[in-house]
Amino acid sequence: MAKQLGGAGLRGQVAGKTALSTVGVSGSGLTYRGYDIKDLAENCEFEEVAHLILKGKLPNQQELSTYKNKLRSLRGLPQALKDVLERIPKQAHPMDVLRTGCSMLGNLETENSFDEQEETADRMLACFPSIICYWYRFSHNGERINVDTDDDSIGSHFLHLLHGEKPRELHEKVMHVSLILYAEHEFNASTFTARVCASTLSDMHSCITGAIGSLRGPLHGGANEAAMDMIEDFTSAEQAEQEMMAKLARKDKIMGFGHAIYSESDPRNAIIKHWSKKLSEDVGDTVLYAVSERCEEVMWREKKLFCNADFFHASAYNFMGIPTKLFTPIFVMSRLTGWAAHVMEQRADNRIIRPSAEYVGEQPRAVTPISERS
Amino acid sequence: MAKQLGGAGLRGQVAGKTALSTVGVSGSGLTYRGYDIKDLAENCEFEEVAHLILKGKLPNQQELSTYKNKLRSLRGLPQALKDVLERIPKQAHPMDVLRTGCSMLGNLETENSFDEQEETADRMLACFPSIICYWYRFSHNGERINVDTDDDSIGSHFLHLLHGEKPRELHEKVMHVSLILYAEHEFNASTFTARVCASTLSDMHSCITGAIGSLRGPLHGGANEAAMDMIEDFTSAEQAEQEMMAKLARKDKIMGFGHAIYSESDPRNAIIKHWSKKLSEDVGDTVLYAVSERCEEVMWREKKLFCNADFFHASAYNFMGIPTKLFTPIFVMSRLTGWAAHVMEQRADNRIIRPSAEYVGEQPRAVTPISERS
Repeated sequence: MAKQLGGAGLRGQVAGKTALSTVGVSGSGLTYRGYDIKDLAENCEFEEVAHLILKGKLPNQQELSTYKNKLRSLRGLPQALKDVLERIPKQAHPMDVLRTGCSMLGNLETENSFDEQEETADRMLACFPSIICYWYRFSHNGERINVDTDDDSIGSHFLHLLHGEKPRELHEKVMHVSLILYAEHEFNASTFTARVCASTLSDMHSCITGAIGSLRGPLHGGANEAAMDMIEDFTSAEQAEQEMMAKLARKDKIMGFGHAIYSESDPRNAIIKHWSKKLSEDVGDTVLYAVSERCEEVMWREKKLFCNADFFHASAYNFMGIPTKLFTPIFVMSRLTGWAAHVMEQRADNRIIRPSAEYVGEQPRAVTPISERS
Repeated sequence: MAKQLGGAGLRGQVAGKTALSTVGVSGSGLTYRGYDIKDLAENCEFEEVAHLILKGKLPNQQELSTYKNKLRSLRGLPQALKDVLERIPKQAHPMDVLRTGCSMLGNLETENSFDEQEETADRMLACFPSIICYWYRFSHNGERINVDTDDDSIGSHFLHLLHGEKPRELHEKVMHVSLILYAEHEFNASTFTARVCASTLSDMHSCITGAIGSLRGPLHGGANEAAMDMIEDFTSAEQAEQEMMAKLARKDKIMGFGHAIYSESDPRNAIIKHWSKKLSEDVGDTVLYAVSERCEEVMWREKKLFCNADFFHASAYNFMGIPTKLFTPIFVMSRLTGWAAHVMEQRADNRIIRPSAEYVGEQPRAVTPISERS
C-alpha cells in the first residue's frame, strides 16, 4: 500500500539524489558543486559558473575562452523561429514567449540522442536572450534586430539586444552576478518539473519547456516583478514605511521576503543588495534604493522576515533600464543551467517518477443509462 | 532533516489527493470518479466521459448535447497558430508539434484567471485534433485544410481531418472507446508534471504543455507506436512466435506488455482487443490481428506478462488507417481531460510541490583563481 507522507507538496521528502547544489544547510548556505555562492559571485563570470554546473568543473582560462567563443557562435535564430516570434502579440506574457520559443526550437533542432545533451543545453544558453529580445523589440517597436552580436558574455548580449547598444562595464558585471545567483537551486518546483519530464526519457527541449511553464507561476518565479510593482509606487522611504505598515495591517501578500527553505537569511540577498546600491549611486537615484532598504527594515522589524534573492534584484534591474516584464525571463536565462544539469543527472541514474495518490473520491458505482440521468 | 524514502521515482509514495480515478485497486481495476472503465467504454461516448472527468458528472441527454455543440464550435484555429504550424517541418516529432501548438495557443488565448479554467480545457479538447491534423496535412501533403467541420464527436473530427472524409460508424465507435480508455490514470508522470506546474499557480497552457513533453518520453507515451513498429515486421503468427522467442532470448526490450501499477492484467486490454478484432474482420485482415494475438500468447506463456492498453491499440489504429507517428498525439487528445482535471484539483487545494534531494556531491571548497586552475 502507498505510504502516507507527513506534509503536502512533498516538503522535506527526498525525491532523488543530486551533486549540483546544497540549499539551506545550517540555515543559510547555498553552494554549487561545493563552492559557496558568495565566493562564486565575487570571483567568477557567469560563463565560468555555467561551465561548472553543466560540465562539472570551473574552467581554466583556455577552457573559458573556448566556451565563450562557442556560446557566441550559437546566438543566431533560424528564420522559422523568428517567424513564430513575430506572430506572438505584444501583450503576451514574456514567459509564454520563451516557453513557445524553446518548444519551437525543439522542432527545428531536435535533440535526437542523449549524446547531444550538452550541445543542446549550450545552444539554449546562447540563444534564449536572442529569443526574448527578438520578440520584445519586434512586438514593441516593430524592429527586426540582428541577434548575432560579438558581445563577450550572455549578460552583455542580452543588454545589447534589449537597448540597442553595448552595455557599460558596471552593467555587464551586475549581469554576471545576477545570473550566477539565479543559476541553480536544488529541487525547486521548476527544476523538479524538468526532472519528472526527464524521467520519462523525453528530450531536453520538452524538459526545459516544462520548467519554464512552472517558473511562470506566481508562487515561484515572478517575485522580483511583484516586488518592483510594489516599490515603484513609493515616492520616499517614509511613505514606503507607512504603506508597508498599512499592508501588514491588511495582511496583504508582500513578495520578495522569506523563503520556503532558508530559515535565517537568503545568502543571495547581501550580494545583489551590494550591487543595487552601486547602481543606485551610479544613476544618482535618491528614491528607489532608499525605499527598498526601508522595506527591508520594516519587514525584519515587524515580521522577522528577511529579503530573499528577488527583492533587491527588482531595483538593480530597474536601474539598468530593464522593463519589469522581462525580469522573470532573465531568471530563465540563468536557471537554464541548473535545469539542464538536473536533466542530465536524472538521465544518468533514472527511474520514472511516478508517485501515488490518496483516493478521496466516489465509491464504485454503475453507469446509469443516459435517459435516466438527472 | 529530509526523510529518506524507500524507493527511487517516489514509487508508492503519496504525493497528493485525488477524486478522479483509482488505478490497480485489488490488482486490476481502473475507475474514473467511481465508474468502472469497462462500464464506461461499453455504455458511453467519449464526450460523456470528458464531461464526467472535467465537470464531475455524467451528463444527461440535454447536457451532452449542449457540451458537444460547444466543443464543435471551438474547433477553429487562429491564423497566427496556423502560421506557426506551417513552419514546423515534416520530419518533426508530432509530440513536439502538439507541445508547440499548445504553447502558442497560450500566447493567443491566455488563461488570465482561474475562472477561465473550464473554458480553456474545453477549447483545447476541441482544437487539439485540428492542431495535429492541420500540421500533418500541410507538412506531408501541402494542403491547408479547413478544420471547422460539423462532425458529431472529437474522434470523428480527428479521422475526418486526417483522411479528408467523414469516418464510418465503426471507426467513430472505436475512437470513442479508445479515447475513453486513455482519458485518465491517476499520478502517472505526465499528470504529475501537470500537477507540479499547477502547484506554482501557473496557467493551464503551461501545465498541459509540460504534460505533453513528459508523455513524449519513450518510458511513458509511445508504447503503442513501438508495438506497431514491431508487429508490422511480422508476416504470420508463426514467424511472430519465432521472432518473439528470439527477442526474449536476446533480452530485447518489448513494448506493450506489463505495467508499473497493474500486477495481474491491464483492464483496458480486453476492451481494445475486442475492437481490434472487429476492425480486423471488417478490413479482411488475415495477418496483423493473428500476429498480435500470438505475441500476447508468447509473452504470457514465457514471461507471465500481460498486454497493457497500448498493445492492441497498435493494430486497431492501423486498421483505421492512422499513421503510426500519430498514435501518441491521440493519447494526448484523450489524456488532456485527465491532465486538466488534475490541474483544477491541484489548484483547489494547493501547496507548491517542492521536495528535497539527497546531496551526493563535492564537500565545501574554495574557488581557485582562474590562472591557477588545471
